Amino acid sequence: MQARLETDDLQENLSRVRALLREAERLAELRRALDALHAADIAYILEALPLAERLRVWDLVKADRDGEILVEVSDAVRESLIASMDSAELVAAAETLEADELADIAPDLPAAVIQEVVQSLPAEERERLREALSYPDGSVGALMDFEHLAVREDVTLEAATRYLRRLDELPNHTDQLFVVDREQRLKGSLPLARLIVSDLELDVARVMVPEAVTLHPEDPAEDAASAFERYGLVSAPVVDGQGRLIGRLTVDAVVDYIRQRSADSQLAEAGLLQEEDVFAPVLDSFKNRWAWLAVNLVTAFIASRVIGAFEDSIAQLVALAALMPIVAGIGGNSGNQTITMIVRAVALGQIQESYWMKLLAKEIGVALLNGVIWGTLLGAIAYALYGRIALGGVMALAMILNLVLAATMGVAVPWLRVRLGRDPASGSSVLITAVTDSGGFFIFLGLATVFLL
Amino acid sequence: MQARLETDDLQENLSRVRALLREAERLAELRRALDALHAADIAYILEALPLAERLRVWDLVKADRDGEILVEVSDAVRESLIASMDSAELVAAAETLEADELADIAPDLPAAVIQEVVQSLPAEERERLREALSYPDGSVGALMDFEHLAVREDVTLEAATRYLRRLDELPNHTDQLFVVDREQRLKGSLPLARLIVSDLELDVARVMVPEAVTLHPEDPAEDAASAFERYGLVSAPVVDGQGRLIGRLTVDAVVDYIRQRSADSQLAEAGLLQEEDVFAPVLDSFKNRWAWLAVNLVTAFIASRVIGAFEDSIAQLVALAALMPIVAGIGGNSGNQTITMIVRAVALGQIQESYWMKLLAKEIGVALLNGVIWGTLLGAIAYALYGRIALGGVMALAMILNLVLAATMGVAVPWLRVRLGRDPASGSSVLITAVTDSGGFFIFLGLATVFLL
Repeated sequence: MQARLETDDLQENLSRVRALLREAERLAELRRALDALHAADIAYILEALPLAERLRVWDLVKADRDGEILVEVSDAVRESLIASMDSAELVAAAETLEADELADIAPDLPAAVIQEVVQSLPAEERERLREALSYPDGSVGALMDFEHLAVREDVTLEAATRYLRRLDELPNHTDQLFVVDREQRLKGSLPLARLIVSDLELDVARVMVPEAVTLHPEDPAEDAASAFERYGLVSAPVVDGQGRLIGRLTVDAVVDYIRQRSADSQLAEAGLLQEEDVFAPVLDSFKNRWAWLAVNLVTAFIASRVIGAFEDSIAQLVALAALMPIVAGIGGNSGNQTITMIVRAVALGQIQESYWMKLLAKEIGVALLNGVIWGTLLGAIAYALYGRIALGGVMALAMILNLVLAATMGVAVPWLRVRLGRDPASGSSVLITAVTDSGGFFIFLGLATVFLL
Repeated sequence: MQARLETDDLQENLSRVRALLREAERLAELRRALDALHAADIAYILEALPLAERLRVWDLVKADRDGEILVEVSDAVRESLIASMDSAELVAAAETLEADELADIAPDLPAAVIQEVVQSLPAEERERLREALSYPDGSVGALMDFEHLAVREDVTLEAATRYLRRLDELPNHTDQLFVVDREQRLKGSLPLARLIVSDLELDVARVMVPEAVTLHPEDPAEDAASAFERYGLVSAPVVDGQGRLIGRLTVDAVVDYIRQRSADSQLAEAGLLQEEDVFAPVLDSFKNRWAWLAVNLVTAFIASRVIGAFEDSIAQLVALAALMPIVAGIGGNSGNQTITMIVRAVALGQIQESYWMKLLAKEIGVALLNGVIWGTLLGAIAYALYGRIALGGVMALAMILNLVLAATMGVAVPWLRVRLGRDPASGSSVLITAVTDSGGFFIFLGLATVFLL
């Protein structure tokens, strides 16, 4: 391009350069601001930005913090960040992580990257990674870390304290040291709060306390979370089959797990396969949602065929078409109340085998009470609207029967699932709504066909 | 009663006495077993027993543990236990509690009991109780406790350690001492882990670290819980408007809060006013459930009237009655997917003011994609069933339009609630289902009336 010599052009060039410089300064400022933030806060910002802006901010984050931030962001956003990085960047990021953190993000990393990282790990870390990856989601092993401090029972508190002082700082959430014997078998624990107030001449064995809760890596995470909640724990040791200390579970991992579980059940309830990036492309959102819609279309189609079987009745008395969704709807709502309460009680371990019949009797009692009250009300309204007393009676009777059906299913579905050893929560809402919809249409239209036509 | 002298009768008396003695021994054994259990574990047992057996076990629990167990049990079960105790027992139980625990169960206690307990409290505790009671549910103030340890910044670590040793044991969840000046203003914190590894000659001021998170009692508990989760905290100081230390929040209170909140939203979603005692009498369960059923009856009734307006069309083409629930149902499901995802994103602070339009466009995109796919499929099935191509077309078009309506409402409802400063979650599912039901019937029957009749 030829140099332009008019003063205006020079002026223009100058102001463009200055504008770019100002922008560069602002970027440098943004970079500094990001440097000062906690990894979790940067993760939050990345999650709240649409893709293009998210990736621009991601570029500004210092490379040596990439790893810790990838651990913090949600699965959906992590995928979008990893997709923007090349192998070398991913390897560098992964190498900054502890074995348990690496295991958390490993499912999202390309296999080649994992292989390269594994090869660069020292033998002990490699073994830990292998171990962390070997436990399924939802087990204590998948949540535990390896940053525990262990002391031998036959040393003095003085020696234990000297050992701690040689460390630059203690791992996060160290509220206790684990006491082990020569074979690394767990003997008890030495809470820091006790170490501080005790006479340093004493032996660890004299001051240690029995461990409140000892976990195994294959224990369900849910049970461990309950124990943390019940006993207000900060950390708990994880031991293998021989009672040897292999890791620990800390309350921050438990809090993450509880939040994630509650989010998952909320999402599953609404029919989303997984947490969705709010700014995901339309196609990604579609993939996350179609399965549930398909299931519901099938159940809606079945209900539709039930109605189809009564088309003659509806043709004779078209009021039935207007009234039938009320009967079906209230059954679904009431059934969901029952099943939600029972699924929660099962999860909390509050229902013993011998109480199911008692529970069924109670739920049918509630259903009858609801049925009589709302059935009478709606029956009266149906009579007022259509002037046929028998229609009101059929309406009331159908509501009572559908509520009893809902209550029975609301108890029977979780009972059956518990007996079959399945999770009583999963899909229970779809199932009960399907039954009360089709059942409600069948009961109402069937009664109407028998008594009204 | 006259003495009976036959040997048989004497034998019978003896064996009855021995049976009763054995039973008394078994009760004593049960009592010892209960004594050995953690309060939270006794609470769990009480929650899992029907009322009569629950009260028998409750009678066996040592009176001096009543207080801590009342704090642990669920609200519904606490009510049943308190109802079985007289004033003197309640006062005795309440007097064993710390101010913050007392505040937790105060709403369930008779006013006279609270008054008597308050009068027996030392002035400082009374002030704390007054303070704890003054903060609304869902604020940091309602969750905090007063068991913090504070040290002055101008003392040595040696002196701080001597102070700790004078205490018999440190309060639970003490992972740090709070550093204050003469006026109790918070200056920083001294983590125990740092105290242990530091030179005891140093001043507290030299070793202390700036506090990561400082809370105010009026802060929303939800924000505090997010901070605990993000930064993996074990405890955080609570200060007043002048920056003076007044209490602390610990991770166990946060875990309880998170669990409770997740339970509440699960229950609210299913239309239960509050956590229900599984073994509650029928009438109690009815009270907990009727309000939601009434709301749903009203919305179902509105939908029914929409159908009623098209009775002539249905009488002419009765297939409409069988097909209309499919259109309404898929709208409700899809709308719930949208609103659940958005409500979650709002709760996580991921949606900035300027992104709502972008979000609406995306959700309408997903709706169109779903609508074209499922609409075509269901339209084809309707055609196959009823042999009218126009009916298939109306079915497909109605599904597309109702899905777009669902997507629009799924974005608009939370947006409006955020603008009005309300909780976007509460009742959103009812609202959207009401709109997509009535809207779905109206769209489908309206299109059918225009194009088919």
